[in-house]
Amino acid sequence: MKIVVYGMGIIGASFAAALRRAGHTVLGKNRSRGPIETALARGMIDGEAENYSGCDAVILALPPEPVLRELDEGDFPEGIVVSDICGVKKIVEERVRSKPRRYRYVGMHPMAGKETSGIASADADLFCGKNLVVTVCKETDPAALSLVKTLAADAGFGRIVCTSAEEHDKKIALTSQLAHIVSNAYIKSSFAADVSGFTGGSFQDMTRVGGVDETLWSSLYLANRLPLLGEIEGLIARLGEYAEALRAQDRERLTALLREGRLAYESHFSEK
Amino acid sequence: MKIVVYGMGIIGASFAAALRRAGHTVLGKNRSRGPIETALARGMIDGEAENYSGCDAVILALPPEPVLRELDEGDFPEGIVVSDICGVKKIVEERVRSKPRRYRYVGMHPMAGKETSGIASADADLFCGKNLVVTVCKETDPAALSLVKTLAADAGFGRIVCTSAEEHDKKIALTSQLAHIVSNAYIKSSFAADVSGFTGGSFQDMTRVGGVDETLWSSLYLANRLPLLGEIEGLIARLGEYAEALRAQDRERLTALLREGRLAYESHFSEK
Repeated sequence: MKIVVYGMGIIGASFAAALRRAGHTVLGKNRSRGPIETALARGMIDGEAENYSGCDAVILALPPEPVLRELDEGDFPEGIVVSDICGVKKIVEERVRSKPRRYRYVGMHPMAGKETSGIASADADLFCGKNLVVTVCKETDPAALSLVKTLAADAGFGRIVCTSAEEHDKKIALTSQLAHIVSNAYIKSSFAADVSGFTGGSFQDMTRVGGVDETLWSSLYLANRLPLLGEIEGLIARLGEYAEALRAQDRERLTALLREGRLAYESHFSEK
Repeated sequence: MKIVVYGMGIIGASFAAALRRAGHTVLGKNRSRGPIETALARGMIDGEAENYSGCDAVILALPPEPVLRELDEGDFPEGIVVSDICGVKKIVEERVRSKPRRYRYVGMHPMAGKETSGIASADADLFCGKNLVVTVCKETDPAALSLVKTLAADAGFGRIVCTSAEEHDKKIALTSQLAHIVSNAYIKSSFAADVSGFTGGSFQDMTRVGGVDETLWSSLYLANRLPLLGEIEGLIARLGEYAEALRAQDRERLTALLREGRLAYESHFSEK
């Protein structure tokens, strides 16, 4: 297939490189010229896209606002398949469905990334064995869905889950958005600046994704405000229970709270 | 040297195996017989300890309560070096200093572990390149400290930091104890049971150590109640700020909060 990837950041360039390796013709598009030259030099794309004509699919690997803009203003040929990789899906799906479109839309959210960004971190193996969420609704074209699944398999994803945009956003509030907020909040402890030599794996893991791009993540959070608020408030309430048990020096209560967590942990990880 | 390791769990058996590999004679001691037999079968110890006589050092690789009991009731020969691996150090140090002792005490806390426990998870490489905190006070015997540092280097630790028990407990409240509570609380979200296929690295990292042994960790938490309470309350307050910004749909405030975290993150990790 002939595919345009718009956005040569870590996700877009990784998609491009993986799809090109799988035998597709991949054209890159980017607002600035630098990443296109890097992608060409690293063999991640076959060339630069002038437009979308003659292409089977376009992947918009951009933050939410530019994705919404391109979905409205992009010059898409009739019937082309358009996907995006935004971390929130309801606002994208709603925008697409707000009026008739020449293109056929299917949303994606790769459960993959790194704590670094940009094409320098891109890697044709980034998606190998990872989860991909594909969002569908009653208007989704079956052939477009099938094409996106083929591309996803070619990109190396280990598991592809189809769900509604609303369900995606609710689950992602917990599995990704809250994790990044906790990590960002965790590292702000006044002690964090001075713990060199006192850290092990649990601290590293807890803070690994704390260095978020605040502009991108503010957009993602505001676009998924209520599910995320529910998760933050839920976590605050649960943390408050441990604090209360400690304040009361209530060993029995503290043990019970930890046991609840252990059982939830075991039940979660035994499902896999 | 001739060393007794009391407690053949993940930490004790890993210490035994690493020290034996480094050329020391290592005797194991354990309340139940099974782990001793495993340690013998896996070549982690030279034999079982009958008592501490003729030994240079004892490592108490036990939870806080049995460590405190052994420090009071153990039949230690005059001048022997005694160390422990408890995750809290102030209560241990205070107990040791509460009366004259025949032994010379130096505390340790290895910043290493796994999300599993027991001798089945033990590994002679567990400490390779990891951090070790060694606790000292004005009564610490310099020769005993030197001996413990030698053992630590032989066990493979990459960095050894000496500090007071009080400083240790304050820092560890953030770097280890809070991380385990957050992980335990995180996995209790009502959505966590149903996110298979929707998870990536950030969720895995956030929940990895959630399955804590509630009996052991209750003891560790209660023994470090005030520093830990401070960290939980601090994190709750910080998380509340993001929630408030989301509630108010205040993009500027949300961006500022995330930027603060990113700067703390960058400053923390650039120190390394």
